[in-house]
Amino acid sequence: MAAKARQYKVIFRPHFKTHQSAAIGEWFRGEGVTAITVSSVRMAQYFVKHGWQDITIAFPVNLLEMDEINHMASGIKLNLLLESEETAIFLKENLSAECGYFIKIDTGYHRTGVAASNVSLIDRILRAADSPKLQFKGFLTHSGQAYHAMDKQELIHIQQSASEDLFRLKKHYQHQFPGMIISVGDTPTCSQLPVPKGINEIRPGNFVFFDMMQFALGSCTLDEIAVALVCPVVSVHHNRLEVVIYGGAIHLSKEQTLLPPDPKPVYGLAVGWNGENWDTTNLLGKVSNLSQEHGVISLTQAGCNLKPGDLVAILPVHSCLTANLMRKYYTLDGEIIETMNS
Amino acid sequence: MAAKARQYKVIFRPHFKTHQSAAIGEWFRGEGVTAITVSSVRMAQYFVKHGWQDITIAFPVNLLEMDEINHMASGIKLNLLLESEETAIFLKENLSAECGYFIKIDTGYHRTGVAASNVSLIDRILRAADSPKLQFKGFLTHSGQAYHAMDKQELIHIQQSASEDLFRLKKHYQHQFPGMIISVGDTPTCSQLPVPKGINEIRPGNFVFFDMMQFALGSCTLDEIAVALVCPVVSVHHNRLEVVIYGGAIHLSKEQTLLPPDPKPVYGLAVGWNGENWDTTNLLGKVSNLSQEHGVISLTQAGCNLKPGDLVAILPVHSCLTANLMRKYYTLDGEIIETMNS
Repeated sequence: MAAKARQYKVIFRPHFKTHQSAAIGEWFRGEGVTAITVSSVRMAQYFVKHGWQDITIAFPVNLLEMDEINHMASGIKLNLLLESEETAIFLKENLSAECGYFIKIDTGYHRTGVAASNVSLIDRILRAADSPKLQFKGFLTHSGQAYHAMDKQELIHIQQSASEDLFRLKKHYQHQFPGMIISVGDTPTCSQLPVPKGINEIRPGNFVFFDMMQFALGSCTLDEIAVALVCPVVSVHHNRLEVVIYGGAIHLSKEQTLLPPDPKPVYGLAVGWNGENWDTTNLLGKVSNLSQEHGVISLTQAGCNLKPGDLVAILPVHSCLTANLMRKYYTLDGEIIETMNS
Repeated sequence: MAAKARQYKVIFRPHFKTHQSAAIGEWFRGEGVTAITVSSVRMAQYFVKHGWQDITIAFPVNLLEMDEINHMASGIKLNLLLESEETAIFLKENLSAECGYFIKIDTGYHRTGVAASNVSLIDRILRAADSPKLQFKGFLTHSGQAYHAMDKQELIHIQQSASEDLFRLKKHYQHQFPGMIISVGDTPTCSQLPVPKGINEIRPGNFVFFDMMQFALGSCTLDEIAVALVCPVVSVHHNRLEVVIYGGAIHLSKEQTLLPPDPKPVYGLAVGWNGENWDTTNLLGKVSNLSQEHGVISLTQAGCNLKPGDLVAILPVHSCLTANLMRKYYTLDGEIIETMNS
């Protein structure tokens, strides 16, 4: 992803919410990364403590964390996200240090952000935020609808439509803010498609590990998934072609994905574990159900030899949520990698 | 629940996986509880450390935790769950201290357990486990299918069918094991129905807090839900009748439930929070979507006045998973209650 950003001459500001780890952050530093994205004030504080000095909190400002924001803004280059006049006014009145801000644009995901067509609201936010303490950095979007793209054509369409929205705004405001940044950031488009000319910054995060959802979307091969949860088999039910593992919703999270043509959603993919590494060519089954600590695996033929005490590797559906629940990593060399939740 | 157990003269062995807290365990001790249920060896270790001396680990034995099991069995009254010959043989060979065991019976949930009709497998497990170190305690089931009951009639049917299965086994083995215990334990049946004559032990857990899933099942009123996640509003979208809260899958978990007649599943219910308590009569909306840190609330009329910085209380769909993610509680008096994950 770093090479891709260099190729397209865009700022690479990776999202660190997937790994949440200072040690893994160092791998990024090794690629020349100096600016990062996080999803909470708490996560920003953790990475500040580990030497990161240029952080965008890609989450609407939580007014109740003003003290923490002020403290951070006084020490590093901090960017916030604005999408309402009220929050802009509140920041202007309560910010005690200089801070950058992006206006969050809704390019079709309809979760947060100002509709790209709502220039009147954008004008009002810009006016409300007009203060020496607040520097407008540009427009930022997260095309989360890319996670629902049925195929590459739809993904291309989503990227085009979002880009057109953003470029229209760029054109509209370019005289007023010539240095403005257009920032995009979802792993499906950043992994699978070229970066459109006119985009200035990409913020993908999940690609650091990928997962079954990204596999289902075509963003990665099974081999490129870089994190797995190793779980013991505790119960075997040959008559149903199922085993139960010690590995449930409190380990994997209850995120589902579809693996067509199978019409039933899965909670993970079980592959072989030889004690040192997992083997995606040894497909053992699908995680078909999860309760608090139990995972049910619907077996392939290869999985039918599993017995209590055997270990299997589960490729998670959503690596961000699994990593958040498990709180640390073991490398294949047995090294422990800590996270902000360790 | 303690009063109900006294009324029906059954052992009350509550499941502590919902609260996972030594301090909340003390509330149970105040009701005379001395025996508990947990769902992992790690959870058992935590409660042993806090003075619990009679624990059933209601999860198939994980052979890879034999050392921890031996260590615990040497100090307390420990009961394990068996459902295979292999595990029974392994335990007989590797147990270094005395231990009780239940045979887990599948009474229709089809997750773990021996089919109630499979007397031949039960006989083989009993033979394989024949050792002075292993004491057969009885038959145990978890009728998890109760969580899918469409109405009370179906719940009654599930309870009757499970009871018949267990009583048939009791009758079959009563000469061999006259003191055997029949143990059941799901919150929907334990909350809503009388305890059938012949049952010796109940193990419900979720009732300590209840949640939206139990509300949907008819196990509790909204008022009886005893835990909520207080979240700030960060984004308001009047045109869609939605607000976004700082409260996502890493806080609430992605468990869903249906609230008929609404055909769309919800991830929680948003009610008023006045700074001191929540108010279930002030219904603000339904959590209609969750991503890692964002929750989307589809608003009621009353919710339409919410603005950034306001707090709302979310009644979780599955309190066990939310409590596990949040790792501690604040009482309404501002006291902090720690858990095994604090």
